[in-house]
Amino acid sequence: MKRESLLDDVRSRVDARLAGFFELKRLDAERISKESVVVVDEIASLTMRGGKRVRPAVLFAGLRCASDAATLADVLDACAALELLQSYLLIHDDWMDSDAERRGGPTTHVSLARHYADPHRGASVAILAGDLASAWSLELLAGARWPRGRELEGSRAFARMQEEVVLGQHLDVVGHRDVALVHHLKTGSYTVRGPLALGGILGDADEIQLDALEAFGEPMGIAFQLRDDLLGTFGDPAATGKPTGNDLRAGKRTALIEEAEKALFGTIRGPLDAVLGHAEATDEQIAVATKLLVDCGAKARVEARLDTMLEDAARALDGGTLRTGGVAMLRELRESLARRDR
Amino acid sequence: MKRESLLDDVRSRVDARLAGFFELKRLDAERISKESVVVVDEIASLTMRGGKRVRPAVLFAGLRCASDAATLADVLDACAALELLQSYLLIHDDWMDSDAERRGGPTTHVSLARHYADPHRGASVAILAGDLASAWSLELLAGARWPRGRELEGSRAFARMQEEVVLGQHLDVVGHRDVALVHHLKTGSYTVRGPLALGGILGDADEIQLDALEAFGEPMGIAFQLRDDLLGTFGDPAATGKPTGNDLRAGKRTALIEEAEKALFGTIRGPLDAVLGHAEATDEQIAVATKLLVDCGAKARVEARLDTMLEDAARALDGGTLRTGGVAMLRELRESLARRDR
Repeated sequence: MKRESLLDDVRSRVDARLAGFFELKRLDAERISKESVVVVDEIASLTMRGGKRVRPAVLFAGLRCASDAATLADVLDACAALELLQSYLLIHDDWMDSDAERRGGPTTHVSLARHYADPHRGASVAILAGDLASAWSLELLAGARWPRGRELEGSRAFARMQEEVVLGQHLDVVGHRDVALVHHLKTGSYTVRGPLALGGILGDADEIQLDALEAFGEPMGIAFQLRDDLLGTFGDPAATGKPTGNDLRAGKRTALIEEAEKALFGTIRGPLDAVLGHAEATDEQIAVATKLLVDCGAKARVEARLDTMLEDAARALDGGTLRTGGVAMLRELRESLARRDR
Repeated sequence: MKRESLLDDVRSRVDARLAGFFELKRLDAERISKESVVVVDEIASLTMRGGKRVRPAVLFAGLRCASDAATLADVLDACAALELLQSYLLIHDDWMDSDAERRGGPTTHVSLARHYADPHRGASVAILAGDLASAWSLELLAGARWPRGRELEGSRAFARMQEEVVLGQHLDVVGHRDVALVHHLKTGSYTVRGPLALGGILGDADEIQLDALEAFGEPMGIAFQLRDDLLGTFGDPAATGKPTGNDLRAGKRTALIEEAEKALFGTIRGPLDAVLGHAEATDEQIAVATKLLVDCGAKARVEARLDTMLEDAARALDGGTLRTGGVAMLRELRESLARRDR
């Protein structure tokens, strides 16, 4: 299998399913009120204009770790459900973080505030757009082909994923100091561990296989988030879709900041403190702070931890309990996630 | 069976289940972070300090319309799920409507804005508290005893209920003129139709029984909302937990306002326009506007529609396809909802 081909294949199939879903929802909304169409179009626009579809690919790989016979068609609706869950969380998060851009376009609350010429109404309808995406994710989840008797286990896995990500986002919003805990809850759960567990259950995996998927998913989820933190400060804005210095200006407590705090004391921290949480920081100030994150070794230490996590993930695949087809997919995903630039 | 006894019995059982659930969630949260406990306590406080538990009683009645053997214990988690769904929706709605009081206490965003001494952070954590309650409702739903092979149908019914209520709340927020449509979507779905359908599916109802439940649920849901509109303006604040004139000051487009607009023209509308959507309206102005709603016949017309809906609901129970035990429960619920003062 060619590199990137798994992600590419899953992406085109999931995109087609999502496009069809939104088309039907738009027809439903037209029958209710032209106002309702506005909300549907906001969700569709955010969902369709980007997204790597990593979570669907992870789910599909989890499925094939448990079953050689199951196909992407069997779980396509569950894959689409993960993307709707993602849209729901992004819409709410972006409003909380007062972010203006997402996936190369305006965030939902910004777009709706413009539409209604009223920030509170825009924010309210954005929260509702998120809530609607959440309801749709549930509908789609029920559309997958579930093995007889595993439906409730699947529901519980989906609920646990939501619970963890919301608890993690809460700790993030209140600026909790333990970045690893926030990562574990906020990203790990619904990016790798959760989708893998869902895929496993959909493939009728046994206890031992589910444990093996968890052992891979835990370090892989952390690696994913560490890569995200690196990209949020050192990534190319054209690729990430977020402006340079976005994480710094937002005052986000990333793994980079946590490492820098361990390395830097007193006045030496000045250039970092000058931009952290300061939306009005200049591009020059951002450049100086970014250089400081390199010079103090924070970047190197986060990269080293990322490598360790990737090694742990690779080792977890050596147990021999998972189907080889699925394991090959997980190896491929591990490679592309390790090298991703957006 | 004594009057009110069904609601009372269901309420005490559901309250006990919810109390146990929150106790476990609080222990989980303590293991994560003391910050997380704050969110759990907010959800628990709102959920436990009131609520008539109408939706669980409706679900239980729906169950018994399909099965004589099924017990409340079988569906207690699904009942609790409906209350968590309700908390989720109330928390989000109250922030959108900028309401300060709910169930005789501060609304969640007001309480959290105080806790963090920061309105945006308070609102953000309130939205997350709602999202968490939503994830928990999903977890609880999976805890009910589902008839084999009906699990996905139950999930879909739950998802449809959420979809409708969110679309209805959106139309409400943007001030859609068709009050009946908003009622159908916003309250009808998750107050009567949805819980009845869930109860029916949990009782392994056939198509004909589900149709009969729907025929009762549709007018009953409208009746419930019309009663709500009447109580929002003419109710006793001590019983409803909401201040006098709340709906009027908030500019809520209720059935009363819709009727008044048909009856009143030009300057005669003055006293109503003076309070509608004016948070600063005095109690004297509210009293004058309230009297106008009586004098112009709006109150009488809404009461007449409410009676018609109650009659339609009663007639829908005469078909003979539902179990008599469940039908008796629905009749009892119809009586107590018709006479409710909160």
